[in-house]
Amino acid sequence: MKIPKGLIDDFREEQVFLLATHISPDGDAIGSCLALAEALRLLGKTVVLYDKDPVPEHYRFMPGCRLFRSALGRILSKDPLLVLLDCNGPERAALERYTFRKTIVIDHHETESDYGEVRWVERNAAATGIMIFHLIKSLGIPITKTMATNLYTAIAVDTGTFRYGNTGVDVLRVAASLVEAGAKPGAISEYLYECWKKRRFDLLTLSLGTLEIKNNVSIVHVTREMHTKTGTTESDTENFANFPRIIDTVKISVLIRAIGNSRWKVSMRSKGRVNVATIAAAFGGGGHRNAAGFRMTADLATVKKAIFNAARSVISKT
Amino acid sequence: MKIPKGLIDDFREEQVFLLATHISPDGDAIGSCLALAEALRLLGKTVVLYDKDPVPEHYRFMPGCRLFRSALGRILSKDPLLVLLDCNGPERAALERYTFRKTIVIDHHETESDYGEVRWVERNAAATGIMIFHLIKSLGIPITKTMATNLYTAIAVDTGTFRYGNTGVDVLRVAASLVEAGAKPGAISEYLYECWKKRRFDLLTLSLGTLEIKNNVSIVHVTREMHTKTGTTESDTENFANFPRIIDTVKISVLIRAIGNSRWKVSMRSKGRVNVATIAAAFGGGGHRNAAGFRMTADLATVKKAIFNAARSVISKT
Repeated sequence: MKIPKGLIDDFREEQVFLLATHISPDGDAIGSCLALAEALRLLGKTVVLYDKDPVPEHYRFMPGCRLFRSALGRILSKDPLLVLLDCNGPERAALERYTFRKTIVIDHHETESDYGEVRWVERNAAATGIMIFHLIKSLGIPITKTMATNLYTAIAVDTGTFRYGNTGVDVLRVAASLVEAGAKPGAISEYLYECWKKRRFDLLTLSLGTLEIKNNVSIVHVTREMHTKTGTTESDTENFANFPRIIDTVKISVLIRAIGNSRWKVSMRSKGRVNVATIAAAFGGGGHRNAAGFRMTADLATVKKAIFNAARSVISKT
Repeated sequence: MKIPKGLIDDFREEQVFLLATHISPDGDAIGSCLALAEALRLLGKTVVLYDKDPVPEHYRFMPGCRLFRSALGRILSKDPLLVLLDCNGPERAALERYTFRKTIVIDHHETESDYGEVRWVERNAAATGIMIFHLIKSLGIPITKTMATNLYTAIAVDTGTFRYGNTGVDVLRVAASLVEAGAKPGAISEYLYECWKKRRFDLLTLSLGTLEIKNNVSIVHVTREMHTKTGTTESDTENFANFPRIIDTVKISVLIRAIGNSRWKVSMRSKGRVNVATIAAAFGGGGHRNAAGFRMTADLATVKKAIFNAARSVISKT
């Protein structure tokens, strides 16, 4: 992992920073921003954190998360250096309407964009949090306990707490250093995995009861009636698609959620062998190899049939 | 972690070893035995692996697992050194009927026994696998890919893949070294967490549908009718008690399984604040602070009521 020299120089020389990350921020986005912001403040810099969307409730244990703003406000008049974290284009951060004097991009996602004067993109990094750890060390700043908690959370979320194939030697070494600096793995995992509301668990149970499996594809669905019965909303279905992965024969796990009258949002998760982005693309959606989705208007049975058919065709070519 | 000098000497000087671990072996027991056996064979020793119970199906991906024997056979005539791993008394390994010239105990559990001539017990070690890693290094043997897979699995199982509070700096450093030596975290996690039969998942769904929560205690149950409906057996309920922990208010998660006419086996899991061993003891059972159980003969409603009452009393004193 080689940090561009110009990037280190900018962090040392500039005074005013706007750190921004993608809409619907996840643990890696939030933790990377918070840790870098704290480091820059220790260097005496002025830092504003921006995300158009609020920090989701289940990430509000992350130290400093209340510092995020959902509007740019007066920072623009100070002509800040923009740092985009965990994304690589202004649209993903809802910043496409603005222009900036200079932009740094720090990301680990695939990119087709060339946005930004300084771009540090590590496609093989498991999390942006790993990159921020190395950056903070390179700036000569000691990792504080709050930085450690934020960066450990970032890495935990993007590696499924060290369960995904992206868990390499560097990931575990950095995690060890973060625990040494004060991160508490047990407490962080409890916040991440054991803080569901009972109503959300009830919705999960109802949803798992709809399980259908055909040709290595599992589908569960959530209807509006289920939301009404349990007092839940669509955001409560986050992560539901991962549960049927537990079954040995499942190669693709699909969640279908009602978002209106005969309107459905489809999320697909692959165990890694099948590329679900190609299935999503066939329905006008998008995503990554292991996680992709699309929307469809039809009755539920038609949606399911279409998914089973499309998946069978892609699996047979894999 | 200080390895007793006599232990290293014994491993160097003795020629014939019987490695044994506890009945109902888990990933830590199996992985520790397999890795140490491989290391001793590289030193030219004769090694026999013993467990009275077979390696459970979901651990049969572990390299060398077919080397375990469920009977002692001719090894006794060779007057072996007995090494007890992941347990500290002969009863736990179903060896109480035998006497041995010399016994070494290597374990990380609480112990009240003084069995064995050489005892290396590290109560603060997250897994016996961590101790075996350091032992193999101390013997000057390089960690092979198969040892790495076995030891990584051992550590993953006993730390909930780095989610429990016992995930310390040493745990993550050792895990990093094991990945460096060839362990594949993604593949191991898939074996551990994504290889359920569909019938087992169906049983889980039925069981979660029975969820009741009172005063921070969750109870789910499994009846014999559910087993019949799904074609499952009692061993399929392993780990079910952990699922309701996902709910924020749950401090103790309880699973009740039918084992006969009005006979029930109760498993309790604590998130760490409440000591469930004291609840189990009140019903004549046993276990650890975070995982304990007992058996009871009564109708289901009576069993549940007794558990809710006993748990309320212990929680109120915590």
